[in-house]
Amino acid sequence: MHSFDDYKRLTEENLNKLFNSAAKGFALNEIPELLSASMSYSLMAGGKRLRPCMLLAACEMFGGDIHGALDFARAIEMIHTYSLIHDDLPGMDNDTLRRGRPTNHVVYGEGQAILAGDGLFNYAFEIMLKASLADKKDKLPFINAMNAIARGAGVTGMIAGQCADLYAENKACDDAQLLTYIHLKKTAAMFKGAVTAGAYLGGADEKAINALAVFSDNFGQMFQVTDDILDVTADEGFGKSKGKDAEEGKLTAVSVYGLEGAKELAEKLTNQALNALADFDEKADCFRLLTRDMYSRKH
Amino acid sequence: MHSFDDYKRLTEENLNKLFNSAAKGFALNEIPELLSASMSYSLMAGGKRLRPCMLLAACEMFGGDIHGALDFARAIEMIHTYSLIHDDLPGMDNDTLRRGRPTNHVVYGEGQAILAGDGLFNYAFEIMLKASLADKKDKLPFINAMNAIARGAGVTGMIAGQCADLYAENKACDDAQLLTYIHLKKTAAMFKGAVTAGAYLGGADEKAINALAVFSDNFGQMFQVTDDILDVTADEGFGKSKGKDAEEGKLTAVSVYGLEGAKELAEKLTNQALNALADFDEKADCFRLLTRDMYSRKH
Repeated sequence: MHSFDDYKRLTEENLNKLFNSAAKGFALNEIPELLSASMSYSLMAGGKRLRPCMLLAACEMFGGDIHGALDFARAIEMIHTYSLIHDDLPGMDNDTLRRGRPTNHVVYGEGQAILAGDGLFNYAFEIMLKASLADKKDKLPFINAMNAIARGAGVTGMIAGQCADLYAENKACDDAQLLTYIHLKKTAAMFKGAVTAGAYLGGADEKAINALAVFSDNFGQMFQVTDDILDVTADEGFGKSKGKDAEEGKLTAVSVYGLEGAKELAEKLTNQALNALADFDEKADCFRLLTRDMYSRKH
Repeated sequence: MHSFDDYKRLTEENLNKLFNSAAKGFALNEIPELLSASMSYSLMAGGKRLRPCMLLAACEMFGGDIHGALDFARAIEMIHTYSLIHDDLPGMDNDTLRRGRPTNHVVYGEGQAILAGDGLFNYAFEIMLKASLADKKDKLPFINAMNAIARGAGVTGMIAGQCADLYAENKACDDAQLLTYIHLKKTAAMFKGAVTAGAYLGGADEKAINALAVFSDNFGQMFQVTDDILDVTADEGFGKSKGKDAEEGKLTAVSVYGLEGAKELAEKLTNQALNALADFDEKADCFRLLTRDMYSRKH
C-alpha cells in the first residue's frame, strides 16, 4: 500500500500533464488556450486532493493497480473543481476568494468561468471514457466506476445538495433534516462516488462496496460538520474568511446545533465512519487514519 | 426504417417519462422538486429534437434497435438543452427569451439555472451509464457511443465553440477561419456526436462512422449558416428576435460573407454533406431528406 502523500503526489503529477495539448488561439482538435488556462487556473490551485487520493486508496485496498486508476482520480478532482467554480459564481455564492486566490470568474469573467466549469465536467468524462476504451480488460468495472462518480456528482447527489443549499440560504431555518440532506448530498455523495469508484476499479465485491458507502456517508458528513465548526473557530488566513457562513445566512451544523452540539455530532459521525470499516483488515488503515486526521484538523 | 416524425414522437414520449421520480422538497434518492422543475422547464420547451432523431436514424440505418438507443437519444437532447440554458445566462449571451418563452434564469433565477444546466448535463451521463449497465450485450458499443457524445460536447467540441463564440463577440472581426471554427465546434460537433453515437449503437464499422462524421461536419456548418441567414431574413415571431446577432456583434456567416455569400456557402455545404452519403443506400435517405429540409427551411 502507498501512503496518502504518495497518492497526492501522483495526482498532482498527472493533473499537471492534462493541458499539454492546449493550443494558442483556436486550433482544430486542441483545447483552446483560453479554455485550457481558465480550467487549469482552478484545477491547479492546490487543495487537499482528498477525493482522488481516496479513490486510489480504495482501488489499492482490493489489489487494484493505481496507475490504471489515475485517469479516474484526475476525473473526480476535475468534477470537484467544476463544482467549486460554479458554486463561487455571482448567481450562486458570489465568492471572490478561494484558497487565497481570486475566484475563476474574477479572473476570467463570468461567461468564461461558466465554460471552465462545464469544460472540466465534460473533460472528466472524456478522460474516463478514453481510459475505458484503451484498456483491454473487461469493461464492466470501468462502467461501474463511471456510474459511481456520475451518481455522486448528479441530480440525486452533489447537484441535489447544491440545490438544497441554495434553497436554504437566508431562509433563517434550523431544519436538522434539511441540514443532514445537504451534508449527505453536497459533500458526502462525492466522497462516496470516489471511494466506491476506486473499489470497483480494484475489483471489490458488492458487500465491500456497501460497507465503503456507509463509511463515506459518515465520513463526508463529519467532514462537512468540522468545516462548519472551523468556519466559526479557525484562524483567518487559509484562504477563506472566518464567519462567512453566518454572514451569508447559511444553514450549518453550528447554526442548527450550536458549537458544542456540532462537536458532539462530529465525534458521533467519526465513530460511525470507523465502525463501517470494522470488517476490513489493515489495508483500510489509511481510511482510519484519514478519518481521525479530518476529525481533528485545525484548518 | 421509421420516419423522422416517429423518432421525434418517441423522443418526446421518453423525455416526458424522465422526471417521474421527482420528489416534493428534498427526499433522499429522489431528484429535488425544484431541480426537476427547472430542468424539465427547458427540456420540455419543444424544439426540433434534431440531435436525438439523428441518433436514432443512424442507429436504425445499421440495423440497430432504436428502443435500445432511446436513452442515448434523451441524453443528447439533455446535453443540448444544458448548453442552451448556460448560453442564455447573463454572463454569456444574456438572453431573456428562448422558443417564445422566458429563459431558465428569468424564471428560476441565475443560481438555479446554472444548476439546472449542470443537472441535465450530469443526468445525461447517468442515464447512458445506467443503460450501459442494464444491457447484457457487449459493452464496447455503449462506451464508444458515450465517448462520441462526450467528445462532441467537450473541450475540443461544443464547449470549445462556445469559448470561441464568446471570445469573438464584439471584436468586430471578420475572420473566416474563426467563423468556420465556431460553426464546426459549436454546432457541427454535437450533430457529429449524435450521428456517430447512433451508428456505434447500431453496429456500424469505422469506414461508415468516418463517412457520417464528414456528413455531420458539413450538415452542422450548413445548419448554422442557414441559422445566421434566417436571423437576417426570417419573419419575427418564432421565439427569437430578428437581427439579434448583428445587434450583439456576433461573428456570423452573414457578417463575414454578406447575405449572398452566405447563401452560396450554405449551398456548397449542402452538396458536400450529400456527397459524404454517396456510399450509403436508401437507408440514408432520411439524412438526405433532412439535409434538403434544413437547407431550405424558413425558420
